[in-house]
Amino acid sequence: MRDAPLGIFDSGVGGLTVVRAVQRLLPAEDIVYLGDTARVPYGSKSPETIRQFAAEDVRFLLSHGVKAIVIACNTATAHALPALRESFNLPIIGVIQPGVEATLADPETERIGIIATRGTIRSHAYQHALAQRRTGLIIHARSAPLLVPLIEEDWLEHPATEAALHTYLDPMVGKGIDALLLACTHYPLLVPTLEAFLPGEVRLVDSATTCAEHLARLLDERSLARESGEGELRIHLTDLSEEFEQLAQRFLARPPGRIRRAVL
Amino acid sequence: MRDAPLGIFDSGVGGLTVVRAVQRLLPAEDIVYLGDTARVPYGSKSPETIRQFAAEDVRFLLSHGVKAIVIACNTATAHALPALRESFNLPIIGVIQPGVEATLADPETERIGIIATRGTIRSHAYQHALAQRRTGLIIHARSAPLLVPLIEEDWLEHPATEAALHTYLDPMVGKGIDALLLACTHYPLLVPTLEAFLPGEVRLVDSATTCAEHLARLLDERSLARESGEGELRIHLTDLSEEFEQLAQRFLARPPGRIRRAVL
Repeated sequence: MRDAPLGIFDSGVGGLTVVRAVQRLLPAEDIVYLGDTARVPYGSKSPETIRQFAAEDVRFLLSHGVKAIVIACNTATAHALPALRESFNLPIIGVIQPGVEATLADPETERIGIIATRGTIRSHAYQHALAQRRTGLIIHARSAPLLVPLIEEDWLEHPATEAALHTYLDPMVGKGIDALLLACTHYPLLVPTLEAFLPGEVRLVDSATTCAEHLARLLDERSLARESGEGELRIHLTDLSEEFEQLAQRFLARPPGRIRRAVL
Repeated sequence: MRDAPLGIFDSGVGGLTVVRAVQRLLPAEDIVYLGDTARVPYGSKSPETIRQFAAEDVRFLLSHGVKAIVIACNTATAHALPALRESFNLPIIGVIQPGVEATLADPETERIGIIATRGTIRSHAYQHALAQRRTGLIIHARSAPLLVPLIEEDWLEHPATEAALHTYLDPMVGKGIDALLLACTHYPLLVPTLEAFLPGEVRLVDSATTCAEHLARLLDERSLARESGEGELRIHLTDLSEEFEQLAQRFLARPPGRIRRAVL
């Protein structure tokens, strides 16, 4: 079982930032990635539809013999994680709990900003998970729907991105935040821009890195970690296009290899 | 047959700008609208996938007894119109030909700018249709992927939109254009912003209005126009969400009524 691959899925290619973080931390692991690019984005869809899509994604990964599954998609984690854990008998982790725990790792952190897609903010999943773990928090949650397309356009330093960040972040920065939780797997690409944009005292928490750390601990606890070898990555997308291949390369920060078409 | 409804479909709610233009021009017509919101956007998907989705959309509208179909989606028009006309035996019109003909209606127009989603620009459908009809045109085509999310965010006057327009339009305006073809059904909402942004001599051609005019001529020629009564609109979406309902209201410029969920 230790030598079985990890399964990681997302509605699109954003989850490849999680793959990249996992590859860095767990270089021996084989990874099967599924991006449901034929039905991206999940964020604007209804909870029932998202649960149905996520179950199909998990079944695809199971058919590839995975030992554990990472939902590298905030929307799918918010709406489908409990149902998936009930339906399937293997470890399944999402991106929310790791991000929330990393945010609260500093006991001084009281004022927390969250940015995410509209669906993630509207689900209240982060706000709820934070409030469950610590009382007295001041939470500023803001949907930032333009950030995904700005990142996909590679406008990381563009005036349009700066203007969008002002609208999204100035109000919460003005009120004061100790940490900003990047609750979307696209956002790690914006970290350098955000570091330059935000006051120095605001700590950035990105869900890709924290999710990989959480996964490493889980594999270790359950004796599921692969002990040696050089991991391979296989990317499956439900729809192929030149655009997705280019995005995949940027999100992975290396050539993605041959991308296969998945039929769910 | 005259009293049968018109069928209009799009990958999402953007096609409601075409509905609005049709309602204005042909107020007696009943309209059945299908927005494939469960699978929006089509623009980033492969041509084969788009053709399959479009055929399913047409079958849904046929099951509602429509007399003619408008593809209110540039991507679906670019990739699926010829195949749909071969497969189905009723008048089907797209948004490309009307936009192209309206652009060339002025015989002085030689230098044409086109903005659209990446998929529409990459299909070369507009460039090809223009070049087929007039030789010697100078065409500047530019994909403008941020405009759809900026419009959906309702940032019509936002500095981010202005920054994006500078990047997308300054190069072609600098070289000189006589007309700018708005080759995406979202863009009519940006007309006031564009009128303020562009030099006065640039003529704006929007595909929603030109498509409605084309439809009116077609119904007239084939004796299919409804002669009296007050048309009703029925909106079906493949996925329902609060966000789509709000967008529908903005795109239609009136309350959308009860929206039904469609199963394709």
